[in-house]
Amino acid sequence: MSSSLNFGNLSVSIFGESHGNGIGVVIDGLPGGYEIDFEKVLDFIARRAPKKDGISTRRNEKDFPEIMSGYLNGKTTGTPLCAVIKNTDQHSKDYGNIQTVARPGHADYTGAVRYNGANDIRGGGHFSGRITAPLVFAGAVCGQILEQQGIHSGAHILNIGNVFDERYDSVNLTAEALEEVKVKEFPLINSSKEEKIKEEVKKASEKLDSIGGCIECAVTGLKAGVGSPMFDGIENRISQIVFGIPAVKGIEFGAGFAFSDMYGSEANDEFITDGENIRTVTNNNGGILGGISNGMPIVFTVAVKPTPSIARPQKTVDYVKMENTVLEIKGRHDACIVPRAVPVVEAAANIAILSFLI
Amino acid sequence: MSSSLNFGNLSVSIFGESHGNGIGVVIDGLPGGYEIDFEKVLDFIARRAPKKDGISTRRNEKDFPEIMSGYLNGKTTGTPLCAVIKNTDQHSKDYGNIQTVARPGHADYTGAVRYNGANDIRGGGHFSGRITAPLVFAGAVCGQILEQQGIHSGAHILNIGNVFDERYDSVNLTAEALEEVKVKEFPLINSSKEEKIKEEVKKASEKLDSIGGCIECAVTGLKAGVGSPMFDGIENRISQIVFGIPAVKGIEFGAGFAFSDMYGSEANDEFITDGENIRTVTNNNGGILGGISNGMPIVFTVAVKPTPSIARPQKTVDYVKMENTVLEIKGRHDACIVPRAVPVVEAAANIAILSFLI
Amino acid sequence: MSSSLNFGNLSVSIFGESHGNGIGVVIDGLPGGYEIDFEKVLDFIARRAPKKDGISTRRNEKDFPEIMSGYLNGKTTGTPLCAVIKNTDQHSKDYGNIQTVARPGHADYTGAVRYNGANDIRGGGHFSGRITAPLVFAGAVCGQILEQQGIHSGAHILNIGNVFDERYDSVNLTAEALEEVKVKEFPLINSSKEEKIKEEVKKASEKLDSIGGCIECAVTGLKAGVGSPMFDGIENRISQIVFGIPAVKGIEFGAGFAFSDMYGSEANDEFITDGENIRTVTNNNGGILGGISNGMPIVFTVAVKPTPSIARPQKTVDYVKMENTVLEIKGRHDACIVPRAVPVVEAAANIAILSFLI
Amino acid sequence: MSSSLNFGNLSVSIFGESHGNGIGVVIDGLPGGYEIDFEKVLDFIARRAPKKDGISTRRNEKDFPEIMSGYLNGKTTGTPLCAVIKNTDQHSKDYGNIQTVARPGHADYTGAVRYNGANDIRGGGHFSGRITAPLVFAGAVCGQILEQQGIHSGAHILNIGNVFDERYDSVNLTAEALEEVKVKEFPLINSSKEEKIKEEVKKASEKLDSIGGCIECAVTGLKAGVGSPMFDGIENRISQIVFGIPAVKGIEFGAGFAFSDMYGSEANDEFITDGENIRTVTNNNGGILGGISNGMPIVFTVAVKPTPSIARPQKTVDYVKMENTVLEIKGRHDACIVPRAVPVVEAAANIAILSFLI
Repeated sequence: MSSSLNFGNLSVSIFGESHGNGIGVVIDGLPGGYEIDFEKVLDFIARRAPKKDGISTRRNEKDFPEIMSGYLNGKTTGTPLCAVIKNTDQHSKDYGNIQTVARPGHADYTGAVRYNGANDIRGGGHFSGRITAPLVFAGAVCGQILEQQGIHSGAHILNIGNVFDERYDSVNLTAEALEEVKVKEFPLINSSKEEKIKEEVKKASEKLDSIGGCIECAVTGLKAGVGSPMFDGIENRISQIVFGIPAVKGIEFGAGFAFSDMYGSEANDEFITDGENIRTVTNNNGGILGGISNGMPIVFTVAVKPTPSIARPQKTVDYVKMENTVLEIKGRHDACIVPRAVPVVEAAANIAILSFLI
Repeated sequence: MSSSLNFGNLSVSIFGESHGNGIGVVIDGLPGGYEIDFEKVLDFIARRAPKKDGISTRRNEKDFPEIMSGYLNGKTTGTPLCAVIKNTDQHSKDYGNIQTVARPGHADYTGAVRYNGANDIRGGGHFSGRITAPLVFAGAVCGQILEQQGIHSGAHILNIGNVFDERYDSVNLTAEALEEVKVKEFPLINSSKEEKIKEEVKKASEKLDSIGGCIECAVTGLKAGVGSPMFDGIENRISQIVFGIPAVKGIEFGAGFAFSDMYGSEANDEFITDGENIRTVTNNNGGILGGISNGMPIVFTVAVKPTPSIARPQKTVDYVKMENTVLEIKGRHDACIVPRAVPVVEAAANIAILSFLI
Repeated sequence: MSSSLNFGNLSVSIFGESHGNGIGVVIDGLPGGYEIDFEKVLDFIARRAPKKDGISTRRNEKDFPEIMSGYLNGKTTGTPLCAVIKNTDQHSKDYGNIQTVARPGHADYTGAVRYNGANDIRGGGHFSGRITAPLVFAGAVCGQILEQQGIHSGAHILNIGNVFDERYDSVNLTAEALEEVKVKEFPLINSSKEEKIKEEVKKASEKLDSIGGCIECAVTGLKAGVGSPMFDGIENRISQIVFGIPAVKGIEFGAGFAFSDMYGSEANDEFITDGENIRTVTNNNGGILGGISNGMPIVFTVAVKPTPSIARPQKTVDYVKMENTVLEIKGRHDACIVPRAVPVVEAAANIAILSFLI
Repeated sequence: MSSSLNFGNLSVSIFGESHGNGIGVVIDGLPGGYEIDFEKVLDFIARRAPKKDGISTRRNEKDFPEIMSGYLNGKTTGTPLCAVIKNTDQHSKDYGNIQTVARPGHADYTGAVRYNGANDIRGGGHFSGRITAPLVFAGAVCGQILEQQGIHSGAHILNIGNVFDERYDSVNLTAEALEEVKVKEFPLINSSKEEKIKEEVKKASEKLDSIGGCIECAVTGLKAGVGSPMFDGIENRISQIVFGIPAVKGIEFGAGFAFSDMYGSEANDEFITDGENIRTVTNNNGGILGGISNGMPIVFTVAVKPTPSIARPQKTVDYVKMENTVLEIKGRHDACIVPRAVPVVEAAANIAILSFLI
């Protein structure tokens, strides 16, 4: 199996290749009768689309999902929801030259070994970032169901290179604060950093290079008691999905790697109550203890590697001829995929959280 | 579900509470006929046992696993292998005072909400670090099967606080190099750092505090082509298991979070061939591209938070009385659990890797 | 979850409603590089199509599958294979009168309760027999991969009402014998029974009624040693899939229910060897012992209830008004769905068997 | 995988071999806080024990389960519940002579192929009927949780050979009627048949033979709307578990195979309402439509083959020497396992039904 998530009550099965007939997703297990605003789904998907500012690829993607099933009169039917996005803009020639020459950092070589050379390599095939579009679709649908239960999610660029946005206020985070950031064309908490970050990308682009970054994601409104130890906690599920996003190479919850240089007395989140509700004073644990939500915002950060598609000549191998060679990748590619990955990470969180609540 | 991993061909189901009758594991799906050296399993488990150097808890654990099934005449039978470790040393009084007062950083409160207050809270119950003993058992068994296929794993302390060991040579790593480190009483590549690291722990201990750290883990000998995009790759499975280890709050593969400040030209691992084999010149991707192994060593790092059990008074809540209170945790606790978590992380890697090869 | 099979290495996710935009399937886990003859897939699907002989519905189904992904240059790519069949012939008015009046024997009422009244009830929605078309597609693809491994399957009408075809020779069954039967317009071993069986259907039809039957299915060429006790044997998987076919209400392997009036000395299949191969003299166990294949043909029989859609007036309930009422189902319906279910049962067997061999 | 059920929210993992150290089960996913009367669990298990009447084996089984975890102060803790039954009565010599001579009808040969000859063959190993003891344990626990929700199950001998008990009144069945039958030493609805049925068994026994039978099982109190099409309905789950019981070779729901000679007008269960509740007038569908409960009793029947262990000489094969031979099975064996299988089938139903309700 590969691109199917199965949480028992909810399964999400993604299919498609960059230059095949179509890509899409089957979501099986959504409860019946939930209103889904299709326009809002399109808005969510649009956040993943290439930006006009030159940061993202200029390939004109038309990510319009046709719903095949599971949705009637504006509501989920409860039976499997399938959406298909046709691939209309397939300039496979752009990629014609790379065939059996492995692009460094990409899955060309590993995919060829895995699938006995039979996989569709045009445009990266099933490994293409384009395959995150159906993931975003699924996340958009799940997100609307979560919102009807008072649960909101959001994500933003934490840093690109060494230029950092602020972090969410993980203790007092609100749905409104999340919303405010995610509607921005360039999702930053502190938009005064926008120019500096874009410069960072531009600098990479001018060097015919690319650059990595991090994305912070948060969920508010989730009650305490969701998730299970040991292998079926919130951290387990989110990370299983998030590592399905091409280019993600790390994840941390709450303070994450910073914990490694903390004392317990700093790291522990003290509990406090007003007699009715229990909260923590800090939120280093990112809202999760023992795999289970504690009622505080869920917060995690994801590391995104620089897109491997760079125009610079790179040493590599033709894995069929078994010869060393030099590759120059033609075509247009994002110099930084972090901005476009923001809604994808948010989608992953939505799917994970909803899977616990059905 | 909670403590059961299910990879279709292999399932691992862990049970037990710190102060119940016994803890253990059922491993279902191991192929029949593999020789398992029980003494070597005990050696592996012993690496998780408390150290005599004062770093780890002085509670005298007797982690002797009795094999109930699935193992005959020194070999796996192919049918489910179950091992039970009886709990013999249960001083539940040590924990008597904390009952419904949530220990900050622990799962007491979240567990009580999750299980309607019915879970066994003595010694942390199912959330106790003791529950990693059966995980280690399973990892030890899986590891021996992997070794018979030429695959070796190892782990070491990367840092405690801000004192760092060296990293594995992720390009030229050998089984021997892994082996050399893991047999050490204190698993460091550069043992000259041992004293400094132990001082770091001692310092925390003297402050009645605890301290976190990181563990680096690697696997050699895995051929290219193992794992699947998007949700069933090596990263997905390893992280699903690793977040089952209490106190783990982050994971990164290869360069991980460091990717976020890299250019693509630095990050991409160029391929090279001698006409017979394909390797990469660097190994920033930790041996994984598109979720699939590329034949280079698998390398990942895990962040471990400081053990939440500290002797200092902490503000917290009695979640039944719904009152604020102050807690002083009695009993003996590790000031740093990182050394004992090293074989646990290695066990997680063994289970994940073997699950792909059955 | 509902319409997704997940066998760890292979998942099959079916979607669609009778009168929605489209129906289809995602098959995730097929190995890469297998040749699939698309024309042969269409032939398989055609076997499920309505017959021109008046036995099956005259609704003109156009079951043409468009492959979205996972198939390139005549071969599986190894990544998820999705096929979509557009619904083009949707006369939802035929079904307009039944809305909240539960058709007896159908899932209208149970579906409404299950999905809070939100499910698509037009034409039976997701419960329609039409949803077996994607199952057949999946089975056709799996079947071709099995054939490349020397494994063949086939099915035929065992009986309709009390008119019986012969049974397969379960001891000496060959691929050729299976093939010969399944290409027939009306799949019987003994075609001299065709007229009598069709009369049985006609008789039911003239009474504005419908009639049930049984289907026998067999698989040849499967080596001994496939399948696992207790819950993951061949019987478990086949039955899990087969009960996904609407109207199937029973399954038996080998002698099945006849075992209940047998002595052990009659029931036991004695083993015999020529020094090289082991066979059984009889095959009462249908090729399965302890859930595992024994090298003999796999044989099972499935009971199909009479299609509940009959033109006769039936007492029933309007489950919204909570009133008793009388229903007369308009539209054209098969008087007997057994012939069309034959390839569906075969498809189920193909999926189950392939799932063990990947 | 083999002996692990995984329904997403509930997993049941069974382990053990007939003559190993112990057998048992891990149930992962039970909600916390349910009272479980351990004495009643023992009573349930006792129903599976050998009878004193000569029908069942005289081997003195001591099926006392020790609970390792998941159960505290009379309640489920919510974390995995493990029970171990030690094997104390292991006369492996009785079985010494059969080693590599395949007992016809048993899984000796298929198990040897499946597990490369490494499986434990003593007493049938993991394929032994003894392995149903932990299944019964799990079913007993699940049954108590169901009863607290007003759901009751029961099973009885439907027939042994051609002597039949009555069937449940599938329309008006009550919890009391179920209870009345299952507490009987010999579970029949009409106990006047007891003598005749026992004679049937005695007759087989005197011929050094064995005999098969059927078991009918029913569940009352289950509301409409439980289960899902296509592959995750009540029929799918029950049959997946039931085929895990050694010797089960067929299952039918409601009228089952009798449907094959019915008209739709006979088969359809008409709906009726009193304005508040909806019922059906008949219950040919066994309480299930489209995989979903309709509020009527769930009814299914299971075919059990005659135990393959018979004292008569049987032709068979030594699968290591690859020679034909004759086998005479020594030791004491049930001439009919149907009576002892009754609570096992009931246990399977309990697990399946509870898996939908967690």
